[in-house]
Amino acid sequence: MKINGNFLNIAESYLFSMTAKKIREFVAETGKDVIRLSIGDVTLPLPAACVEAMEKASREMGNKATFKGYGEEQGYEFLREKIREYYTAKGVDLSINEIFISDGAKSDLGNILDIFAKDNIVYMSDIVYPVYLDTNIMAGREVKFFEGNAKNSFLPLPDENVKADIIYICSPCNPTGAVYNKEQLKVWVDYANRNGAVILFDAAYEAFIRDKSLPTSIYEIEGAKECAIEICSFSKTAGFTGTRCGYTIVPLDLVRENVALNKLWLRRQTTKFNGVSYIIQRGAEAVFTDEGMKQVRQNIDYYLGNADIMRKTLKEMGIWFVGGDNSPYIWLKCPGGMSSWEYFDFLLSHGVAGTPGVGFGKNGEGFFRLTAFGDRDNVIKAMERFKNAK
Amino acid sequence: MKINGNFLNIAESYLFSMTAKKIREFVAETGKDVIRLSIGDVTLPLPAACVEAMEKASREMGNKATFKGYGEEQGYEFLREKIREYYTAKGVDLSINEIFISDGAKSDLGNILDIFAKDNIVYMSDIVYPVYLDTNIMAGREVKFFEGNAKNSFLPLPDENVKADIIYICSPCNPTGAVYNKEQLKVWVDYANRNGAVILFDAAYEAFIRDKSLPTSIYEIEGAKECAIEICSFSKTAGFTGTRCGYTIVPLDLVRENVALNKLWLRRQTTKFNGVSYIIQRGAEAVFTDEGMKQVRQNIDYYLGNADIMRKTLKEMGIWFVGGDNSPYIWLKCPGGMSSWEYFDFLLSHGVAGTPGVGFGKNGEGFFRLTAFGDRDNVIKAMERFKNAK
Repeated sequence: MKINGNFLNIAESYLFSMTAKKIREFVAETGKDVIRLSIGDVTLPLPAACVEAMEKASREMGNKATFKGYGEEQGYEFLREKIREYYTAKGVDLSINEIFISDGAKSDLGNILDIFAKDNIVYMSDIVYPVYLDTNIMAGREVKFFEGNAKNSFLPLPDENVKADIIYICSPCNPTGAVYNKEQLKVWVDYANRNGAVILFDAAYEAFIRDKSLPTSIYEIEGAKECAIEICSFSKTAGFTGTRCGYTIVPLDLVRENVALNKLWLRRQTTKFNGVSYIIQRGAEAVFTDEGMKQVRQNIDYYLGNADIMRKTLKEMGIWFVGGDNSPYIWLKCPGGMSSWEYFDFLLSHGVAGTPGVGFGKNGEGFFRLTAFGDRDNVIKAMERFKNAK
Repeated sequence: MKINGNFLNIAESYLFSMTAKKIREFVAETGKDVIRLSIGDVTLPLPAACVEAMEKASREMGNKATFKGYGEEQGYEFLREKIREYYTAKGVDLSINEIFISDGAKSDLGNILDIFAKDNIVYMSDIVYPVYLDTNIMAGREVKFFEGNAKNSFLPLPDENVKADIIYICSPCNPTGAVYNKEQLKVWVDYANRNGAVILFDAAYEAFIRDKSLPTSIYEIEGAKECAIEICSFSKTAGFTGTRCGYTIVPLDLVRENVALNKLWLRRQTTKFNGVSYIIQRGAEAVFTDEGMKQVRQNIDYYLGNADIMRKTLKEMGIWFVGGDNSPYIWLKCPGGMSSWEYFDFLLSHGVAGTPGVGFGKNGEGFFRLTAFGDRDNVIKAMERFKNAK
C-alpha cells in the first residue's frame, strides 16, 4: 500500500504551541498573570433559544413517535429554509437546493476540494487561515499567493498575470480582520469569471459586519453566482465552535465543463457524509428565531465592544492597524520596527499575549493579531498594560 | 477550473428509488398495505440514558462556566476512554491515541481514503455497501472484486493471485448478514500482511453478534494491528443514525513506507475536521453506562427477535439464506429460480417489500435482502404473508 506522499509536504505549524510554551514559561518564571488576547475561540455561552431547542430535540429522539433516523445528507428543510430566508433579507435569492448543511466550515473547506481535479492552480493570500493551504498541499495542487500588506490595507486584489483556477477569499478576514467592500469583491468576481475560476468565499465572520455598505455575502456582487461557492458557519455567529454546524452554498448557476458543481457537491456529500445530527440542526434553526437573533446580536455586540476598546487604545498610541470594527480580529503593525516575535516577547513581558503575524505567512512579519473573544474586564486591563508597556 | 472527472464515472443507483416507486404504484393501484422489510434504518428511539446526557450537555452549553468551544478534533478523552474500555472487555488493548471520534462510519470510510495514494489497487466484495465502491471511483482508483456466493456462504476469502493494497471487509456484512469467524478473518489478515496491504474493517454491526465464538473486532485476530483500520459507529449499536457519532481505530503499529498511518489520519482530521459536537459526544458516552448498555442490548434483542421470527419462517419454507442470527440482515435465495426483481414483484403483490440483491452487485442476482428493523407485529404479519404467497 502506498501512502499519500503529499502529506509529508505539509509544514508543521509551531505557532500556537510556541506561543503557549512561551506564556507557560513566563508565568512559571515570574508568577505574573497573562491576559490572552490570542483566543481564536468564542467564550460566551450558546443563546438560550438554541439550548432549549436542543433539549427538546434530544427528548424527541427518546420517543418512538418523534424519533429521527437518517436525515437527508444536505440537511433538514426546516434549517435550509431558515438560511434561505436569512439570505433573502440580504437581498440574495437562493433555492434551498443550493444550501447544504454541514458540521462546520472547516469540514466543507477541506471536503469541497474533492470535486476539483488535481491539476488546478490555487490562488490565496499569503497571510492565510492554514486550512486553505494545507488541504491543497495534501491534494498535491500548485498554490500561488496574492500579497496583503499595509499598502493595500491587507485587502489584496488579483494579479491579472496569474491565471488561477481556485481562489480563496475570506472576508471579514481571519487573521487580519480586514473586510472587502463591494467594489473590491466585484474585481475578484470579474477576474474569476474571466478566467473560468471558482471562488471559495469564506464568510465565517459575516455576522460581525455592522457597516451596512459592506457585503456580508459574495452573492451581493453581480456575477458571483456564476463563479463562487460560499462557506459559512454558526461557530462565530452563534458560538457553535463546540456545537458544530455550518453551511455551504453552491449556486445552481455555477457550471464548469458543462457540469453543475451543485450536482458534484451533492454527490460528494451523499457518498461521504450522512448529514448533521437532528438535535444540532434544531439548535441551529433556533438561531433564526427572534429570540435567537436577539441573543446572537448581543453576544457579537459584546465582542465588538471589546474590539472597540482595543481600537481606541491603538489609535491613542498611534499604532497602525486594520480590523476590529466589522470583525473580532485586529491586525496591528508592531511598533518601533519590532518583528512579530520580538513584539510577542515584549508584550508578554507586560502580561499580555497575542499572536505573531508571521505565523500566518511571510507577509505577516512585523504584524500582530489581537482577538476580541475575551472578557471585557480583561480587555480593559490588557489595554492599561498596553499603554504602560515601555 | 477543471472538475474531478472521476465523479462522472460513478454509476447512478436506482435501487432504492426504484423499489420506492414500485411500492408507491402498487399501493395506489390496489389500495393494499405493504409491510416494508426493506428498512435499513433503526426505528427504536434512543436509550433514555443518551437522551438525558444530551439534555444535560445542551444546558452546559448555555452556561458560561460549563460552555465548551472547540474540542480536540479526535474527540473528547471521556468518550475515547470509554471506547478503550469497551475494547479491553473484548480482550483488545488500545491506547486512546488510536481512537478517533467521528460523525459516523460513512464519513470516515470516505475520508480515510485521503491518506492513501491514488495508485493503490482496491479489493472488495462484489456484493457491497455502495460507499466503498463510489468513494474509490471518485478518487480514480482501480477496483478488483472478490466474489461472495452461496458456495462460500457469502464469506469469500482472498484470491492469492490478486495483489491488493486496500481491502474492504464488512462483518457482520451489510447487505448479506454473513459474519466471518476467526479462522476466516485470520486468512484475510495474513493475506494483507503478506501483501503489505491495509484492511478497512467495517464493524458497524458488531453489537448484533451474540455468538461468543465470532469476532466483534478485527483486532481479536493476531497480526491485525499491523494491517487493519477498524471503523465503527453508534448508528446501529445505539440507534444513532440521526444523532451521528462513530469512531475509527488506527493502531500505532500500522506503518507503511516508514510512516505511521495513525499520524496521517490525525493530520487529515486536524486539517479537514473540527470534531464532533460536545453534546453528541456526551450522548455517545452514555451508551457505555450500565443503564445505557442495558437499553442498547434490549433494543438489539428486539431487532434480533424480529430476525429470529423471519429465520424460522424461511426454514419452515425451505428457503436458503444466511444472516439474521448475529446481524439485522437476512440474505435469501429467491425461491423457484426467480431473479431478484421478479421476486421483489412477487412479494410485493402479496404485500411485503424487501430489497433485490442484484442492486448490491452482480453476484446478488437471484438473492434478496430482508431487514429486521421493523415493528414486531408487522414482522409477524409479513411472515404470514410469506407463507401464504403463491
